[in-house]
Amino acid sequence: MAQNIYDQPTFFEGYSKLPRSVEGLDGATEWPAMRALLPPLAGLDIADLGCGYGWFCRFAAGEGARSVLGIDLSERMLDRARAEGVSASMRYERGDLDRLELPAAAFDLVYSSLALHYVEDAGRLLAEIHRSLKPGGRLVFSTEHPIYMAPSRPGFTSDGEGRRIWPLDRYLVEGPRTTDWLADGVIKHHRTLGTTLNLLIAAGFRLDHVEEFCPTEAQIAARPELEEERDRPMFLLVAATR
Amino acid sequence: MAQNIYDQPTFFEGYSKLPRSVEGLDGATEWPAMRALLPPLAGLDIADLGCGYGWFCRFAAGEGARSVLGIDLSERMLDRARAEGVSASMRYERGDLDRLELPAAAFDLVYSSLALHYVEDAGRLLAEIHRSLKPGGRLVFSTEHPIYMAPSRPGFTSDGEGRRIWPLDRYLVEGPRTTDWLADGVIKHHRTLGTTLNLLIAAGFRLDHVEEFCPTEAQIAARPELEEERDRPMFLLVAATR
Repeated sequence: MAQNIYDQPTFFEGYSKLPRSVEGLDGATEWPAMRALLPPLAGLDIADLGCGYGWFCRFAAGEGARSVLGIDLSERMLDRARAEGVSASMRYERGDLDRLELPAAAFDLVYSSLALHYVEDAGRLLAEIHRSLKPGGRLVFSTEHPIYMAPSRPGFTSDGEGRRIWPLDRYLVEGPRTTDWLADGVIKHHRTLGTTLNLLIAAGFRLDHVEEFCPTEAQIAARPELEEERDRPMFLLVAATR
Repeated sequence: MAQNIYDQPTFFEGYSKLPRSVEGLDGATEWPAMRALLPPLAGLDIADLGCGYGWFCRFAAGEGARSVLGIDLSERMLDRARAEGVSASMRYERGDLDRLELPAAAFDLVYSSLALHYVEDAGRLLAEIHRSLKPGGRLVFSTEHPIYMAPSRPGFTSDGEGRRIWPLDRYLVEGPRTTDWLADGVIKHHRTLGTTLNLLIAAGFRLDHVEEFCPTEAQIAARPELEEERDRPMFLLVAATR
């Protein structure tokens, strides 16, 4: 079972103050790149795995999706999502992505933003997602990039000459990584990029796009602190088709 | 035009002493992993782009390939390849991978070992390879991994606490990288893993396997100095189908 870190008060409080929690999709630097991978949503049956506050679910409903199912492990997140308003096409359910079972051939699009790195058995989940998609249906997801997740000390440091570096180690050693992001002892599951892609292929997906996200020139001009993102990718974005 | 570094005497002399030059395919740590991606070679029409001393060409001919075309930019490499023996099914040609034109639908397999990182316009080459494959034909290649190629100082160093780290920077800044491997001023072209895969997809390939190579437990047991390879991948191996 996945760690339910979002229901820990310290983590939840910290998370609720992030730009992506306050401003929604537009507060997430990678959202324009994610959106570019999406098909037009009108008329689609959509599942959002790890829906959090439901920002994407509301966006999809607003775009005219036929149905939107938001799934999250965190009761607190789902409470807040429901409080933000649930239209007739929307539904929220509690679910653990490490155990989730989905109806067969039910969705045109499965979307998942920054949830897969909490999942221990990604192969199981990806196979379940594949089964849940209609033929030709699409999976679009983001996850923490393995370069970001791998290191013993995941933070920028300096080499002997004052150059900012990302201290990569253990990239090829897969398995859990425990960090202290927002709360102590947050557990994520490190897989190489190759492993994630091979799990998708093994599940039957055709890979359409693999993006190691970098903020755009315009984003860096508007927020110069983003310049360091060029040194190592924080997010991996993938689009694939059943 | 690609830099013809292999015809520089200093580089050539250094390269000729590497285990992969002396021992051939079995001197390359990643060869078993590459071989696992290959179809049975008997009866196939094969091109080897960046064939070097021709080790793979001779291997393929020995496995019963119908025809093997080895292409390299270096006259010295081709001279040595020819001197090692050219059987009736084998042919060597000089060619620059940045300008190469190949016959249409001519090959069942295009193979390339550690040459793509010297190519400036990988999109052009991959489209040309796609065109040169018969429908259902396969591309299997290795290239230096972008994590290995990206840094300003591509070598292990130590963090303040004595931990070995790979000082990653500029991963998302694509373009030429100049290193002093075997000779000064060797030019390689850094592309993110995502870019390489998206160029393959844009060329029309279906991705079959993406491997960030790590030596096996048995290889590390036999050569303990390989243990550091777990900290960052040196090679990227890809298999794709037209």
